[in-house]
Amino acid sequence: MNIFAPKKKTTMNILSNLNWRYATKKMTGEKVPSEIIDNILEAIRLSPSSYGLQPFHIFVIENQELKNKISPIAHNQAQICNCSHLLVFAAYSNLSKDIVSDYIKLIALERNQNENDLIDFKNIIISMIESRKGDENFNWAAKQAYIALGIAIAAAAEYKVDATPMEGYNYAALDQLLGLGKMNLRSTNMLAIGYRDEQTDHLSLAKKVRKSKEVLFSYFK
Amino acid sequence: MNIFAPKKKTTMNILSNLNWRYATKKMTGEKVPSEIIDNILEAIRLSPSSYGLQPFHIFVIENQELKNKISPIAHNQAQICNCSHLLVFAAYSNLSKDIVSDYIKLIALERNQNENDLIDFKNIIISMIESRKGDENFNWAAKQAYIALGIAIAAAAEYKVDATPMEGYNYAALDQLLGLGKMNLRSTNMLAIGYRDEQTDHLSLAKKVRKSKEVLFSYFK
Repeated sequence: MNIFAPKKKTTMNILSNLNWRYATKKMTGEKVPSEIIDNILEAIRLSPSSYGLQPFHIFVIENQELKNKISPIAHNQAQICNCSHLLVFAAYSNLSKDIVSDYIKLIALERNQNENDLIDFKNIIISMIESRKGDENFNWAAKQAYIALGIAIAAAAEYKVDATPMEGYNYAALDQLLGLGKMNLRSTNMLAIGYRDEQTDHLSLAKKVRKSKEVLFSYFK
Repeated sequence: MNIFAPKKKTTMNILSNLNWRYATKKMTGEKVPSEIIDNILEAIRLSPSSYGLQPFHIFVIENQELKNKISPIAHNQAQICNCSHLLVFAAYSNLSKDIVSDYIKLIALERNQNENDLIDFKNIIISMIESRKGDENFNWAAKQAYIALGIAIAAAAEYKVDATPMEGYNYAALDQLLGLGKMNLRSTNMLAIGYRDEQTDHLSLAKKVRKSKEVLFSYFK
């Protein structure tokens, strides 16, 4: 264990943290302390979502056997087996009135409100859901999960933990392996959490490539 | 001006920051210092995206006349006119080989590599793009923009600046107003940045409503 690696919670600036992070491809296998995992999950839990609905669910996979099974589903990428915790983000396949009702009940409970006072808000959400076709609700739910993904990445970097977002795996195979269908969920992405192996990861020293400010932003002053 | 309001950059913990923030509906109109705006934009610029492609563009709208024109397009929500800066996130409508080529050129330039050494990587991205149909590339690009949205929200909260993500406006009308079509862009969401008006925003003191850990997460230990 490298005693110089900053494994403890630090409170550097978010820009320093984002410059420090990169999409780590080789991890050491060392475990991330559970309190740091809990903090990253809490950041996900606190992430905003449209209407506050949080139309997603997160699977926190520490089990090595399960990670090994997921590896071939995702091009045998090394970080799946060598991460500490693999997060699978999943969004609701179908949005139903029941999901909205549960959310309205939660607001009423948390804010000590009468559910009847929330009926207009409830109907706005339901009419939005019912106006959409095909995969539109799932795509919308997935985008809410991606807000949480962005915040999870920022959180991990603050704790000096590496976090590699992953897409492009065999979604159907992962969903089947985790039994997501019967939970009304489809996976949207994964996030491997662990510690970079600087000796073997050729990207650990590579310069970060980003569009310039001039290319990425347009201003109306 | 409330001298007790923490307007300066602070380095609190991300969890404190996320608990402090909420989707502010009423803002004071006070300007956010340009160095803080620049830092939030830099966090967006540093945000990761699939393959590093950054298939999006951000419009930074400070112009009051333009904000006033956007307001009726978005249900006349007060924060549009009373924010300091309105960010419009837009993703590429169509992903082309040219976009990938530009990206490969940028990597070669930044990392002092030969473009020929990046040909396999380039072909992977192009074959992915070409395998998708209809709006699939746009939806994928939009999700990358949402990662940046999540990180922008975390950044704003660190600087104790309010940031309200917005969807559900008239997308076609906004895209037309900003002339996005001829730029191969479609807007995905907005983010109003400014300072909360605690006197008039009834949500400023409302309890944050989130699913419990037990509901949001499943563990495989």
